[in-house]
Amino acid sequence: MSARYTLGLDYGTNSVRALLVNTANGREVATAVWGYEHGQDGVILGRDPNLARQHPADYVKGAEVTIKKALAEARRTVRGFQPDQVVGIGVDTTGSTPLPVDAQGRPLAFQKRFAKHPAAMAWLWKDHTGVAEAAEITEKARQMRPHYLAKCGGTYSSEWFFSKILHCRRTAPEVFDAAYTWVECADWVPAMLTGTEAPDKLTVGVCAAGHKAMYSDDWGGYPDAEFLGALDPKLGELRARLRPKAWAVDKSVGGLTPEWAARTGLPAGIPVAVGAFDAHLGGVGSGIAPGTLVKIIGTSTCDMMVVPVGQPLADIPGLCGIVNGSILPGYWGLEAGQSAVGDIFNWFVNYLQPGGKKLGSHEELTKGAARLKPGESGLLALDWNNGNRTILVDQRLTGLLLGQTLYTTPAEIYRALIEATAFGALTIINRFEEYGVKVEQIVNCGGIAEKNPLVMQIYADVTGRPMKVSRSAQTCALGAAIAGAVVAGAHPDFPSAQKAMTGLKPRVFQPNPEAHAVYRQLYGLYRKLHDAFGTADWTGNLYDVMKTLIEIRNRVRQ
Amino acid sequence: MSARYTLGLDYGTNSVRALLVNTANGREVATAVWGYEHGQDGVILGRDPNLARQHPADYVKGAEVTIKKALAEARRTVRGFQPDQVVGIGVDTTGSTPLPVDAQGRPLAFQKRFAKHPAAMAWLWKDHTGVAEAAEITEKARQMRPHYLAKCGGTYSSEWFFSKILHCRRTAPEVFDAAYTWVECADWVPAMLTGTEAPDKLTVGVCAAGHKAMYSDDWGGYPDAEFLGALDPKLGELRARLRPKAWAVDKSVGGLTPEWAARTGLPAGIPVAVGAFDAHLGGVGSGIAPGTLVKIIGTSTCDMMVVPVGQPLADIPGLCGIVNGSILPGYWGLEAGQSAVGDIFNWFVNYLQPGGKKLGSHEELTKGAARLKPGESGLLALDWNNGNRTILVDQRLTGLLLGQTLYTTPAEIYRALIEATAFGALTIINRFEEYGVKVEQIVNCGGIAEKNPLVMQIYADVTGRPMKVSRSAQTCALGAAIAGAVVAGAHPDFPSAQKAMTGLKPRVFQPNPEAHAVYRQLYGLYRKLHDAFGTADWTGNLYDVMKTLIEIRNRVRQ
Repeated sequence: MSARYTLGLDYGTNSVRALLVNTANGREVATAVWGYEHGQDGVILGRDPNLARQHPADYVKGAEVTIKKALAEARRTVRGFQPDQVVGIGVDTTGSTPLPVDAQGRPLAFQKRFAKHPAAMAWLWKDHTGVAEAAEITEKARQMRPHYLAKCGGTYSSEWFFSKILHCRRTAPEVFDAAYTWVECADWVPAMLTGTEAPDKLTVGVCAAGHKAMYSDDWGGYPDAEFLGALDPKLGELRARLRPKAWAVDKSVGGLTPEWAARTGLPAGIPVAVGAFDAHLGGVGSGIAPGTLVKIIGTSTCDMMVVPVGQPLADIPGLCGIVNGSILPGYWGLEAGQSAVGDIFNWFVNYLQPGGKKLGSHEELTKGAARLKPGESGLLALDWNNGNRTILVDQRLTGLLLGQTLYTTPAEIYRALIEATAFGALTIINRFEEYGVKVEQIVNCGGIAEKNPLVMQIYADVTGRPMKVSRSAQTCALGAAIAGAVVAGAHPDFPSAQKAMTGLKPRVFQPNPEAHAVYRQLYGLYRKLHDAFGTADWTGNLYDVMKTLIEIRNRVRQ
Repeated sequence: MSARYTLGLDYGTNSVRALLVNTANGREVATAVWGYEHGQDGVILGRDPNLARQHPADYVKGAEVTIKKALAEARRTVRGFQPDQVVGIGVDTTGSTPLPVDAQGRPLAFQKRFAKHPAAMAWLWKDHTGVAEAAEITEKARQMRPHYLAKCGGTYSSEWFFSKILHCRRTAPEVFDAAYTWVECADWVPAMLTGTEAPDKLTVGVCAAGHKAMYSDDWGGYPDAEFLGALDPKLGELRARLRPKAWAVDKSVGGLTPEWAARTGLPAGIPVAVGAFDAHLGGVGSGIAPGTLVKIIGTSTCDMMVVPVGQPLADIPGLCGIVNGSILPGYWGLEAGQSAVGDIFNWFVNYLQPGGKKLGSHEELTKGAARLKPGESGLLALDWNNGNRTILVDQRLTGLLLGQTLYTTPAEIYRALIEATAFGALTIINRFEEYGVKVEQIVNCGGIAEKNPLVMQIYADVTGRPMKVSRSAQTCALGAAIAGAVVAGAHPDFPSAQKAMTGLKPRVFQPNPEAHAVYRQLYGLYRKLHDAFGTADWTGNLYDVMKTLIEIRNRVRQ
């Protein structure tokens, strides 16, 4: 029997990737990347620094371009390759990235009158314009439906579905009124490929719905109309136009349309799996299983675990989400994360440009930082330049650097920033274990895990645990491809597909006991700062310092 | 009668300056600067970042070179100028900068065997190698002689006379044993010019002795032999070789020697005033008087006030010193200060080099900072990169920057650092007034006051008080020249000499009420951080954070 392949489509913040994978062994035989055309590197910005949007036209063109390129590459590099050996497709995207659509499921951004209206675009995951609405939703849920918050860390985020929709309702009512409903990017792309965009045919994934839209089968799906209506009557009316049921990634949303088959060269009718978020399918592509923490480390992190449904599981406070089937069908998907990791290093390099362009590159700073011993700089930082997602769930926090002298160098600060993110990572590990979810191994993936051994070593030294790295450099696309393999029947279920198609790199970063001893002490100090500035119940009353500065900033900037 | 001139010699950290001044009107007719030859810009450094020394050979050569150049310039620019119109000399230096000398008063550094021994050099003011000894002296004084500490802020500093001598005793006993006694640079230079270096002829100034060596006429001069002997028996023996009496700057230590007259071209025999610290004579040169706070703003600041002897005056906690006659004879000299101001800006520019050499200059950063409104950046900093001199009197404190996002720019940080130093300045003003010393006007001088109007405006806006700037750009040398004029009899006393010879620049920086309102709120947050990290009695228990980091750093670096 000739080899079978599956295609993973991975929609990121700046580009989309197609990855063609052998279903028997996970071999990645072809890949193609296409950078979005709209905005700045694919992100449409505004005067408000919280605004970040994408144009859905990039989703359409991106699929066509990357699939064609990947197939062409496979033809060149795999002897006898034929596109009809591709048996299934999986899709992962950023999220929550909802877009307003009309009654046919067509993005409003495709209408001429809205072609340049930012509110008619896809509201990218990192759009924080809905801060006030997020607070309102949290407050209302605490009063009316506290159980809605129990599975999403106790606080509804400005990054999420309803915060964005409600902010659109408040600030761009012409767009809100023109929208029949709102669809997550992760759901819209599979629908587009299979011709199931129409709101009554749409299949939505439980990953997006559960983690970002308070969906649960326990309470009949999305939040009820009374609750949404209490936030805004028109939001209550929208409830009837959301789907009654959400699905895990082992379900097919339909077959590839003849039109898309013609555009790409793929066989028509091959199944497309329910879409999910990049991180969650990255967990799948990293071999996630009970006891394994998968950390996807890029501009931010996503930290995931799974627990079999049926096992006792607490409502772990501060986690971003606990959703049945959001990563693997039959398992609770547990999601935590850090709001910024690589973004902090990028800020330091790109905004501060220490030492000028030459000495201030990531490579040079990493070299300098690698020469330092733990504790040698006397510096300590908090990793909150973009707020704190886990365990504080608070956007209104900011960065902190402490211990500077008159001789502090850029490399020392760079290392302190790396260490701060490691302390943030340890705080998440501890939170899992405090609530009975044992972390038996840690598998890292993503750009930073791939490229920066110093970061991995510091993570091992800070946490006192070995750091493993996923074999694939494209775990999200690989996870999507695995979903494609499962819905195509190439494997009976996810565990067997993962066993065949995922693996680890041989190099494991082992903790150095001496370094770990220093970091244990530094972590004690980090936790003091963390609790002093991040928690309201702390005796010291510094909780208001960062928040008041933000208030002043916002007032002054008006 | 032809004009009379007086010469001020100003020994700084990196160079020495000679200033020739008309005694009638303060006109500065000639100036000359010479950079020290030893070490890095005049400072001998070591592997220990706390070490900072100077070679006394630079003091000798510096006097000769600059006096000759200043006289030559006066001959060129002043019609009919003759060197015999110079009637007196005053000297100011850094301090506490003690140097070990032999039984003839000759610096040990001039002996061949000690020519390269760092402990035989002058221990520059910013040498902090004696941190442990300072703590020991503070502790012992608290037990045995608490009144010794009452006039110097309650804590004896590592920058001061006995900390340095005791550290030499502990770490370089061969130097300690070879030294007959130790002399402040401020006393040694006038002695050198007048041939009175011999320890039994030496005249010491009350400025150095009172502010840095716990000297007071109230308890018979320097600390007693029993106390010093309890610290170390050999320190107790040294007590007998220190001078019994210290003097204010209205006393002449002697006449210029024929040898020095020949070397420089000055008339032999003209009186040389008792030496004092640069800052204190800078206060004189800025027109210090009761109610006037003089701020000398350079790498660090010195903040000075005077109160007539006889008026009630509390032991103001946290001040560096309260010494009878240390600034003006007949007045208490009150000294406060910030351990780093310009040094913090220099650190940011020279060590971090944000934006590279072109965009990261003081000029460019100041331009960018000037475009920002108070509070706009959301940043807040502590000005403790070099510890905190007033009001916490604690070297074991470090810098802090808070409020960073992923978009924070170098200019925003630069402004936050300026603001932090302004908050530190306000804390000192408040401390004076809390203890009944009313601040009626503020006169600034020094490099930053001269060169950076943005800093002056921010200081006005933060404090809510007008910022005036001294007319002279060389207030320390001018103050020394005024002392020379007084000992030469050109004026009967300091107030009349100051009236004739000092003044203010026409531009006064007035506080902007709107900016002040924002800064009042920001200062509240600054004080929270100040108290949380800087005071032990604060409930929040962050007091140990910076100190523990320093402990870890020191342990790790060993």
